[in-house]
Amino acid sequence: MTKTSREKSIGDLPSAKFAAKAGEYYRNLQDRICATFESLDTGAKFERTNWQRPSDHRLKGGGRMRMMRGEVFEKVGVNFSHVWGTLKKESIPQIPGATESKGQFSACGISLVSHMRNPFTPIVHMNIRCMETSRLWFGGGADLTPTFPFDEDTQEFHAAMKAACDSYRPDAYTEYKEWCDRYFYLHHRKEPRGVGGIFFDDLNSKNADADLDFQRALGEALLHVYPRIVARRKDTPFTEADRDKLLHKRGRYVEFNLVYDRGTKFGFATDANPDAYLMSMPPVVKW
Amino acid sequence: MTKTSREKSIGDLPSAKFAAKAGEYYRNLQDRICATFESLDTGAKFERTNWQRPSDHRLKGGGRMRMMRGEVFEKVGVNFSHVWGTLKKESIPQIPGATESKGQFSACGISLVSHMRNPFTPIVHMNIRCMETSRLWFGGGADLTPTFPFDEDTQEFHAAMKAACDSYRPDAYTEYKEWCDRYFYLHHRKEPRGVGGIFFDDLNSKNADADLDFQRALGEALLHVYPRIVARRKDTPFTEADRDKLLHKRGRYVEFNLVYDRGTKFGFATDANPDAYLMSMPPVVKW
Repeated sequence: MTKTSREKSIGDLPSAKFAAKAGEYYRNLQDRICATFESLDTGAKFERTNWQRPSDHRLKGGGRMRMMRGEVFEKVGVNFSHVWGTLKKESIPQIPGATESKGQFSACGISLVSHMRNPFTPIVHMNIRCMETSRLWFGGGADLTPTFPFDEDTQEFHAAMKAACDSYRPDAYTEYKEWCDRYFYLHHRKEPRGVGGIFFDDLNSKNADADLDFQRALGEALLHVYPRIVARRKDTPFTEADRDKLLHKRGRYVEFNLVYDRGTKFGFATDANPDAYLMSMPPVVKW
Repeated sequence: MTKTSREKSIGDLPSAKFAAKAGEYYRNLQDRICATFESLDTGAKFERTNWQRPSDHRLKGGGRMRMMRGEVFEKVGVNFSHVWGTLKKESIPQIPGATESKGQFSACGISLVSHMRNPFTPIVHMNIRCMETSRLWFGGGADLTPTFPFDEDTQEFHAAMKAACDSYRPDAYTEYKEWCDRYFYLHHRKEPRGVGGIFFDDLNSKNADADLDFQRALGEALLHVYPRIVARRKDTPFTEADRDKLLHKRGRYVEFNLVYDRGTKFGFATDANPDAYLMSMPPVVKW
């Protein structure tokens, strides 16, 4: 990956101390996730798109979109962004600490969604993010969506999430697992999105370094466990009917993302780049 | 089509006089649309599903779902429903005339969305509906979404819509065409859904018979013009790249329906049957 001047401006001109520190880890994680996924595929490489807010824009910053369409990973997006500046007037009362910061904020995060060609390989989603106003808080999570659930995969994934949570505090896994089950639920279908994982938001333990360590533990856990699951399932023989079931399952994923997902709704409500926040959309879907 | 006892109960037990009268036309239109579409396809037939609210449900009524997956019509849904009863307490202030009717309402409508196999044949959407509380009003419209727009099709479609509007009142077409352009717009993409048509809501001219005649004119116009466009385009030779463009255009259709469409959002907000209000989802989609 060539480090362009655009990229440099994102990393080297942070508006807020902690978001910049978190961003450093997120970018590093993004690089390692992409390298690992490339090593699991056959010859496919991530397409790398760096973007930056125009200099006359109310907001500053930009991001690094990484997308791969391969044999194993039919479509996978790994996005990093770091945006800062002044919130719109009407948004200030809705964001904690923004009144005190006079609307100044800095937000950065990494998100990942993988749509796999083999119907027996689950989708994984991960997002970790950091927001700074006069307050500082973290959010994120990771969850698994198989078309055909295997207990072995589910247990291994949850064990990895639990280990990351346990390194943070004893009750974290139970809380964040339940939060995940509540959040990733398709109310209109009365069905869960997948087999869960963990989800958390508004995380502010007064020890930002510990919170960031927890995010690191989550990122590392994901990077460890998901490639193992992919390696185990990617060459499983499948029929047209299996593939058809996968494509219909992806329809539920689209319904969740467009109807319920906070990140996507935030994208709709702002003038964010739809190619970035809709990178999670599956490559082929059926209804 | 066999007339089941379920169906009979929908037609013969209306709660409100005018919705029942409108419903009679909607059901008749549904039958004729389905027969016409079957005649344009090769051997495919509509699958017919009648549904009814359980007798212990807060709401009464039911509907007739008609879906065909054919050669020309890759997936087309034509749905009729008529539901009545008492609105939830929290919805009453939001629905005109519902406070005066103590929450009593009767709603019926027909909706149609066609996803065509040939990339040069446009999607058509039509919806006409009638709502009765202490007030009575109508809504609806029809619009065309081509992947590859042809002036001939666009002009013929708009001419048919204009003729229906002109039979109602002189300014109707201009108003409803503009309303359609405003409504069927993907704000996050900054692009229109298709080439437009007409859209109207809260229609209450104090002459309900004239309003229903306008809906009839719209229904008949659609039934006349769309089959002509389908017949003209359905056998156009196409490449894989053309088909690919169609599948991506359908992605925009999904985005509109899940993010902006009032009918779909109403479905999400109630305990309506997702198979009914999501019948408009395309059979295969790409992002």
